[in-house]
Amino acid sequence: MSSTFGQSLKLSIFGQSHGAAIGMTLDGIPAGLPVDFDRLQAFLNRRAPGQNDYSTPRKEADLPEFPAGIVDGFTCGAPIAALIRNTNTRSGDYSDLRDRPRPGHADYTAAVKYGGFQDVAGGGHFSGRLTAPLCIAGGLCLQWLEKQGISVFAHILQIGSVRDQAFDPLNPDPERIHTPFPVLDPEKGAAMQAEISTARSDGDSIGGIVECAITGLPVGLGDPMFDGVENRIASIVFGIPAVKGVDFGSGFDAACLRGSQNNDGYLMKDGKVSLLSNHAGGILGGISNGAPVIFRSAIKPTPSISRTQHTVSLSKGTDCTLNVQGRHDPCIVPRAVPVVEAAAALAVFDLCLGSHHI
Amino acid sequence: MSSTFGQSLKLSIFGQSHGAAIGMTLDGIPAGLPVDFDRLQAFLNRRAPGQNDYSTPRKEADLPEFPAGIVDGFTCGAPIAALIRNTNTRSGDYSDLRDRPRPGHADYTAAVKYGGFQDVAGGGHFSGRLTAPLCIAGGLCLQWLEKQGISVFAHILQIGSVRDQAFDPLNPDPERIHTPFPVLDPEKGAAMQAEISTARSDGDSIGGIVECAITGLPVGLGDPMFDGVENRIASIVFGIPAVKGVDFGSGFDAACLRGSQNNDGYLMKDGKVSLLSNHAGGILGGISNGAPVIFRSAIKPTPSISRTQHTVSLSKGTDCTLNVQGRHDPCIVPRAVPVVEAAAALAVFDLCLGSHHI
Amino acid sequence: MSSTFGQSLKLSIFGQSHGAAIGMTLDGIPAGLPVDFDRLQAFLNRRAPGQNDYSTPRKEADLPEFPAGIVDGFTCGAPIAALIRNTNTRSGDYSDLRDRPRPGHADYTAAVKYGGFQDVAGGGHFSGRLTAPLCIAGGLCLQWLEKQGISVFAHILQIGSVRDQAFDPLNPDPERIHTPFPVLDPEKGAAMQAEISTARSDGDSIGGIVECAITGLPVGLGDPMFDGVENRIASIVFGIPAVKGVDFGSGFDAACLRGSQNNDGYLMKDGKVSLLSNHAGGILGGISNGAPVIFRSAIKPTPSISRTQHTVSLSKGTDCTLNVQGRHDPCIVPRAVPVVEAAAALAVFDLCLGSHHI
Amino acid sequence: MSSTFGQSLKLSIFGQSHGAAIGMTLDGIPAGLPVDFDRLQAFLNRRAPGQNDYSTPRKEADLPEFPAGIVDGFTCGAPIAALIRNTNTRSGDYSDLRDRPRPGHADYTAAVKYGGFQDVAGGGHFSGRLTAPLCIAGGLCLQWLEKQGISVFAHILQIGSVRDQAFDPLNPDPERIHTPFPVLDPEKGAAMQAEISTARSDGDSIGGIVECAITGLPVGLGDPMFDGVENRIASIVFGIPAVKGVDFGSGFDAACLRGSQNNDGYLMKDGKVSLLSNHAGGILGGISNGAPVIFRSAIKPTPSISRTQHTVSLSKGTDCTLNVQGRHDPCIVPRAVPVVEAAAALAVFDLCLGSHHI
Repeated sequence: MSSTFGQSLKLSIFGQSHGAAIGMTLDGIPAGLPVDFDRLQAFLNRRAPGQNDYSTPRKEADLPEFPAGIVDGFTCGAPIAALIRNTNTRSGDYSDLRDRPRPGHADYTAAVKYGGFQDVAGGGHFSGRLTAPLCIAGGLCLQWLEKQGISVFAHILQIGSVRDQAFDPLNPDPERIHTPFPVLDPEKGAAMQAEISTARSDGDSIGGIVECAITGLPVGLGDPMFDGVENRIASIVFGIPAVKGVDFGSGFDAACLRGSQNNDGYLMKDGKVSLLSNHAGGILGGISNGAPVIFRSAIKPTPSISRTQHTVSLSKGTDCTLNVQGRHDPCIVPRAVPVVEAAAALAVFDLCLGSHHI
Repeated sequence: MSSTFGQSLKLSIFGQSHGAAIGMTLDGIPAGLPVDFDRLQAFLNRRAPGQNDYSTPRKEADLPEFPAGIVDGFTCGAPIAALIRNTNTRSGDYSDLRDRPRPGHADYTAAVKYGGFQDVAGGGHFSGRLTAPLCIAGGLCLQWLEKQGISVFAHILQIGSVRDQAFDPLNPDPERIHTPFPVLDPEKGAAMQAEISTARSDGDSIGGIVECAITGLPVGLGDPMFDGVENRIASIVFGIPAVKGVDFGSGFDAACLRGSQNNDGYLMKDGKVSLLSNHAGGILGGISNGAPVIFRSAIKPTPSISRTQHTVSLSKGTDCTLNVQGRHDPCIVPRAVPVVEAAAALAVFDLCLGSHHI
Repeated sequence: MSSTFGQSLKLSIFGQSHGAAIGMTLDGIPAGLPVDFDRLQAFLNRRAPGQNDYSTPRKEADLPEFPAGIVDGFTCGAPIAALIRNTNTRSGDYSDLRDRPRPGHADYTAAVKYGGFQDVAGGGHFSGRLTAPLCIAGGLCLQWLEKQGISVFAHILQIGSVRDQAFDPLNPDPERIHTPFPVLDPEKGAAMQAEISTARSDGDSIGGIVECAITGLPVGLGDPMFDGVENRIASIVFGIPAVKGVDFGSGFDAACLRGSQNNDGYLMKDGKVSLLSNHAGGILGGISNGAPVIFRSAIKPTPSISRTQHTVSLSKGTDCTLNVQGRHDPCIVPRAVPVVEAAAALAVFDLCLGSHHI
Repeated sequence: MSSTFGQSLKLSIFGQSHGAAIGMTLDGIPAGLPVDFDRLQAFLNRRAPGQNDYSTPRKEADLPEFPAGIVDGFTCGAPIAALIRNTNTRSGDYSDLRDRPRPGHADYTAAVKYGGFQDVAGGGHFSGRLTAPLCIAGGLCLQWLEKQGISVFAHILQIGSVRDQAFDPLNPDPERIHTPFPVLDPEKGAAMQAEISTARSDGDSIGGIVECAITGLPVGLGDPMFDGVENRIASIVFGIPAVKGVDFGSGFDAACLRGSQNNDGYLMKDGKVSLLSNHAGGILGGISNGAPVIFRSAIKPTPSISRTQHTVSLSKGTDCTLNVQGRHDPCIVPRAVPVVEAAAALAVFDLCLGSHHI
């Protein structure tokens, strides 16, 4: 395994950055679900590079074909397949990349694991480009979840030292997210963009945090222990390259809290059980409690920087230095926002399919 | 599913807090592995309650029987089964617990999910007591990993506002962990215990963070995307009740770092590729890079507190208050330390079994 | 893995023939399902040895305990655990069995696979005794399926050269099965019992075929390709020791048929789509078509016979002979009937849980 | 799920008969395995239609592209993707097919399961055409198995009433299989072809049996109970459309045998444990015993026949008749031979990857 996710649905992602095509198959999807291709494309465009000042100037339109699984705009019950042709296919001599692993990338681990047979061009299968098929699958799930009243949306919570407001945990509002730079507070957004610009000027990069909310989940989704909502979301979100941490509700801040502060009391509201606060991030015992699911993903700074770095020659067994060429995102966080949404939507749709509650 | 974990091994945990017995089966373990029962018992005792001032005074010896899978002190290739008889079995009237869900517990989510048929006594299947069979399985894996030169060990990094030193990321040293209160800096340990005592005096509880290190992993363990070391560890660690966050290496701190700070350069050392730093927590592209794997787990404060809390009567549909009776851990973090080690050991042993590298 | 089955449910079986206990855990079962223990015991008794003239005279009552998952006679949503204590635990010297593998048993393959660490006493984990926990799990599923109008029942179709009538494929009738020797035609049953007696007198054993019917399935259960009703049933039925073949509907006889003979035409009956015949065994494209699912399992003759057989000494690397001691079933087929029913019930209940149709 | 197979490898098949493309992804394959494209094409051609007198005259070259997973003729460790463009894409009016299900096809079960959204053109996802991507994946595994000394080969054992010789169970010889009509006895082959011709002249079709042998397996492959060699092979072979039965070794014939006839004695031969016979089909307790694995698959007659058949109008709820148009294989058995080999190779390669023995 490796690039396969899901229990009731089965997502399988393939492709290398500079291969002929990247894509995915998505099995286990019920028949009769409508597909809004325009909306999916708009979603994919949020991830695509070259759209903004603060991302890489490379332009690649991610225009998927769907050779299977969708007929006349509806899922037909058969596995859905999607394909994006690469215009930027492999060429040139990559022997240098094979010999001198880039710090922070998977070059070295892949070299050992695959014994030198790994595709090194553009990062191969480890490239952030592989999040495009993840967004196709997740973008479809987002559409279908919305029809059940479930919304998934995210914003940039932090870049470098600049921190946006957090969602209101009991009432996160997607309308409050600005575009195209997805923050709640536009002043913070401007400061973040300044931080990215400075990093780029320095030939450097910068990390951040994405906060994601899932609203409209029924109570009772998820299972105890290893199949909880947290486990399922974490197991796919850690599949996004660069994610190094995931926490829910109060998360790491709960370490500093008293039980009397962190417990969420109940009250009746309009004849329904409601919560007085949402430190649990909508999940108790692995099971959704009706409050919004709120989680954060830590995104490390892009490892591709223009500065001279220490590495080794694998063939010679000697120390050496490396200057990574090419134009790279100084900050991957803005483009990671729809990817986190896609991953969360896949986890939740999988949970819904396997549930007797929906 | 729910209480089943693993790909090459299959762990299945069963039991409710006040049921006749709790236990586990562990399938897929190679034959011929020795079992050191004394050492396993010593490991289980670290998790058992009533051993310290700072934990619950309840005393339950966790003495497992092994009805299957071990013959003459060696695994025989058949599934291993373990069983702990409960001395503290269900009795009394739990109808009140069924009606008025405790804040922070899974009472409400279980009531909805299981339609009132859930076992409420002592938290049922959601009880922290279910970490005992997890520790049996993980404690066995720890023994077997050590024979391959792989060590897993953890300490308390934080309780409330008191923070211990972190492990040296390139050279975490299990010898530095004090006992029985597992910290690196005993002064911080004393301050943590004071913080726990204060919380208890207040009828309250307090959360914390556990830091865990895994040393001796070969390079090349784990797979890209959804089957990486991070995904696998997170998917089991989030199965520990009270864990609300997991991060690796720099983790959430990477959000504030530049790429030039966060990238780990390479150098040759004794003829081997080594790392100049370990911000990646030993994992690149989901694959172990030879440096220690370092991760943290955020533990929320025990939800059982003696204070009056807001809840509802599910039967009457009215608001009400609740005073949780009984003696509870004011801080679960010290007992969570071996549980995190057990979970990590299971994830790593599963990875090793599925790998062509070991 | 190995002794784990299921997608929506997870069955895990443990135990060795002469170990302290055998048992199972069954995870993923909805809460609130009632358990009729008397009926379950009656079902288990059909599998138990020593009840009839034609089976082994050993007497072991299979009386399961349920330490977890059932509260006050109803499933509580937590994993169900069941345990049967062995009265007949390991004792004596089995070194001979370890050295000279019995033909037709798993002694040799286990010795190689487990490197000599396998439990040889009574066949260890490969013993037919492990079908007792399978029958506990399957016996529960049978009860729950009946509440949904789904019945699973089987009879002996063949023993040696004696062949019973087959079920009416469109209308198999459980009332027609005689007890305690489960055949449709009692004269054939008498002839089968005579064949078993002759085999026993000869110190030999005899094989047979079990035919199983599943009625009441909704149309649309199962999935194309690798997750069809056939795949799922076969993958568990081949887990019953001694099963060497499985076929559905016309099965192997379809090889001799023309399409015009084998196709099942449709007609409207009482406003519903019905079938004119049932050569497909109720399954088209892996999906149930509303007709009864009919399948057969080939059961090899018990390998334990009193005759001198050729084997080798694994330690000496020499040829030798073997006389298997002890009293064994000369024919396992009658006791296999409830085991096949249990396996089929597990496969079908798992399919139902994973389906959006029930 | 549905069209996903494997534990250590993950095969995912997609496509509908008249969709834009069919294909597969194959994840979990080690890096560095060479791919012989010519040999793979030759293998695919054995399955392709229109090559012989006795199959459909439709001509479709199955020429796969490999957009991912193979670089410079070697696997690179990333998932392998393959794609076959359909030249014969959907067009015309299929509303009739949607309304009047063809007997013996999955039309009716798909209509119910997918609520009318299924792709009906050419059988959609249920078409035998989907065995082409299965053969791509299996054809690759066949190449890699051969490098480990494992061979998989099959022949037609039976068509209608004509039965070929069976393989020598202890020494099946691939050299004895004639081409292009794969039988051991060419006279029987001629008689089979005559039987097919007669069926075609009658506007009818005919079924058969394929016998497959796997040689060179190490002792110890497979696991007890639900993960045995039999379970794994059956679970994929039943995924081939038209397969209605699978048996191993003596299989269904074991029902008539005595234990003294069916048990395979051991002897030492060239210092190795060998078998005196092979009634077990190379498998004991689910584990390979070193003898060739031999199994048979029952193939039902092609349901597409030119004769008038009874069906119903789903929209009108009335009985009606149907004449299936188009040119169809009167016998799918010859083309099923490489498909059975491919399925067996996938099951065995998956077992090898998950084993500590290879």
